[in-house]
Amino acid sequence: MRSPAANGELALLLEVAGTPKPGNVDRHRDLEELRFEHFLAGAVGAAEGLRMAETGAAVGPAFERAVAGMAAQRGGNTQFGALLLLVPLVSAARRELSQPVLESVLKGTTVADAAAFYRAFEHVDVFVGEPPADLEALDVRRGADAIPTLEERGLTLLDVMSLSAAGDDVAREWVRGFERSFAAAERIAEADGPLPDRAAETFLSLLAERPDTLVATKHGEGVANEVTDRAASLREADAFATDREAVEAFADELVARGINPGTTADLTAAGLFIALEREAVEI
Amino acid sequence: MRSPAANGELALLLEVAGTPKPGNVDRHRDLEELRFEHFLAGAVGAAEGLRMAETGAAVGPAFERAVAGMAAQRGGNTQFGALLLLVPLVSAARRELSQPVLESVLKGTTVADAAAFYRAFEHVDVFVGEPPADLEALDVRRGADAIPTLEERGLTLLDVMSLSAAGDDVAREWVRGFERSFAAAERIAEADGPLPDRAAETFLSLLAERPDTLVATKHGEGVANEVTDRAASLREADAFATDREAVEAFADELVARGINPGTTADLTAAGLFIALEREAVEI
Repeated sequence: MRSPAANGELALLLEVAGTPKPGNVDRHRDLEELRFEHFLAGAVGAAEGLRMAETGAAVGPAFERAVAGMAAQRGGNTQFGALLLLVPLVSAARRELSQPVLESVLKGTTVADAAAFYRAFEHVDVFVGEPPADLEALDVRRGADAIPTLEERGLTLLDVMSLSAAGDDVAREWVRGFERSFAAAERIAEADGPLPDRAAETFLSLLAERPDTLVATKHGEGVANEVTDRAASLREADAFATDREAVEAFADELVARGINPGTTADLTAAGLFIALEREAVEI
Repeated sequence: MRSPAANGELALLLEVAGTPKPGNVDRHRDLEELRFEHFLAGAVGAAEGLRMAETGAAVGPAFERAVAGMAAQRGGNTQFGALLLLVPLVSAARRELSQPVLESVLKGTTVADAAAFYRAFEHVDVFVGEPPADLEALDVRRGADAIPTLEERGLTLLDVMSLSAAGDDVAREWVRGFERSFAAAERIAEADGPLPDRAAETFLSLLAERPDTLVATKHGEGVANEVTDRAASLREADAFATDREAVEAFADELVARGINPGTTADLTAAGLFIALEREAVEI
């Protein structure tokens, strides 16, 4: 009954409602300047861009619109990465939400989609690392100024994602057929209990599996590895079932240290969308 | 930048995020079968009906669509009353969100709007009291079966609201130009801090002012009066500032006793919408 765009918006809301999600805003935690209500407003604002994707707009312009709407709140960047996953997923869902159809959507992106992606950075401050010297002309912080270079080199949005995949696990999803997003959806479907609880458990399992690339960019690989090792220990101990207090304490500690595994949250939102859209879960 | 329909949806989300909201689902409390995520799904589901109102559909069909979408989750009735306030508010906002324009929207409702209102009860179980004997043919629990009676008597949606206004403070808003909703918006604008906190304080002030009609219908006027007296004492003591623990304890107690001031939550959502739409607050 819910349309793909509505499921995309609901996935954003369920993601932020999941708790404890170590280091991130969740139902029980705010950061200093970035609070729960900013994520609510971000999700509502993103909806029009998701509806564009649902009704056949190209991925780039739909993404740019979603980001512009998401950014219409004072918290800053709430769901940029999640939308970079959700927009092509919503596009694929117009036909069928499968990895082959999704890959055809990704391969169908154009230089114009890449240009819209760069324009999206003008709507909101997104934390990114320094690009390597040979990619300096394509630094996303250039925004629309990078478009001539994109056009000269004929780079599509999928090409741009390929260039970033080594250090950004959202871009990596694009080049790997969203394998972790689909795996997350299966974990969400197999877990028990209310959906936000399943989202929180799946978040921890994703964090235990690979270091969060946003944490690595902001705090270095050492910190990202430490966080992943800690998450893996909690997973091995099945802490959600046996020692929930330990997960809560880890969540508080990461918030206090300013360590926010945002990429892992983006993957969780994508997993929620896939699970909802395939009716593998109900709410 | 946000459209009236988006502000309506955001008002629903901010309302449920406000905490402590004694007796109701809030950011920190679930009921047994009715949880936070059901309100998230209810808000997302309602959005299409709100967009109908925004693009000029009549109030009744827009309301029916909003309720059908809201009901597409397993928690049951989450926001029926709130939508009965938000749909005409969104309609008025197409021209100007003022009490005179709103009253012209309400006076413009037709028998067809009343019929759609009755059909909305077929989408979801709404708790209502027994009607007086002379209104038995118009019992909302009849759903569409009451439509011939509406047509015979030529009753518009505003007429139907007038018949219910004595025992239902949502209907009372319709006959009194949404006076409490507009007053709530002013309190939200004048309060300090994040919007969900302002919503919670305004909820308590509304509850302190008049007994909640849903509580009165479910538990009797004695209980509704007791709840209002308790809320009034907390307000007088400025408990949100001086003794927040007392408000939290009151919230837990009402949840434990199964007392849910749902009408007061509906008015809070309407107040949030008016404050957002008039840009009297920012988020």
